[in-house]
Amino acid sequence: MTDSNDTTVGAEPTNLLLASNKVDGTKVATRDGDALGSVYSLMINKRTGGSTFAVLSLGGFLGIGKSYYPLPFELLSYDHVADGYVVTIDRRLLEGGPSWSNNAPDFNQAYADRVSSYYGVSPVDLSVV
Amino acid sequence: MTDSNDTTVGAEPTNLLLASNKVDGTKVATRDGDALGSVYSLMINKRTGGSTFAVLSLGGFLGIGKSYYPLPFELLSYDHVADGYVVTIDRRLLEGGPSWSNNAPDFNQAYADRVSSYYGVSPVDLSVV
Repeated sequence: MTDSNDTTVGAEPTNLLLASNKVDGTKVATRDGDALGSVYSLMINKRTGGSTFAVLSLGGFLGIGKSYYPLPFELLSYDHVADGYVVTIDRRLLEGGPSWSNNAPDFNQAYADRVSSYYGVSPVDLSVV
Repeated sequence: MTDSNDTTVGAEPTNLLLASNKVDGTKVATRDGDALGSVYSLMINKRTGGSTFAVLSLGGFLGIGKSYYPLPFELLSYDHVADGYVVTIDRRLLEGGPSWSNNAPDFNQAYADRVSSYYGVSPVDLSVV
């Protein structure tokens, strides 16, 4: 118990790997460098292991509490200097997009298609075959 | 607050998407169908969003508590009937592989290479460029 290695704390900023249980809180900024919010979760394709959508957590719009905004993962760029993500879409586009505050939707094919369509990216096939 | 949609609970088993904050506990079985353990976390490449390693949580070997076994993600197959993963490697190979119980290692290039090498899969480049 008393012997300890250098664990996650020291090395994380320079490490390309992110543990799934530490995704929450990863910073997201606009292309201008303004803080936008953080990644609350990644929606992972169970079969391929790929992240298909990132669920962003944003707070304070119109004085209301935290809301969650799903975004196609391909719209996020990893910035290794900031150790966070940069989103190159307009903030108002994001604010007008699919979101929820209290009741998370069932992230099924229809919902995924709605998100992809809103952001103008190719739909993702979620069929489990 | 009182109105609620059908949320995650009902649809999850038939949904191909897994939220990163719900990875922990995903079942892992052997090819013979024997329960082996569960996925504790996925090590996600921040840039690509791809799962490179799965950290399995296994308990009870030799009467000792839970231990964590990193495994290249490519060795896991998703079984949509069981809504879990199947590992097609020998259990004893896993038990003899890289693992930890209390002190998680820094999951850097050297450690990743060690895991890949042990399981005979191609190394993963973790350079952050």
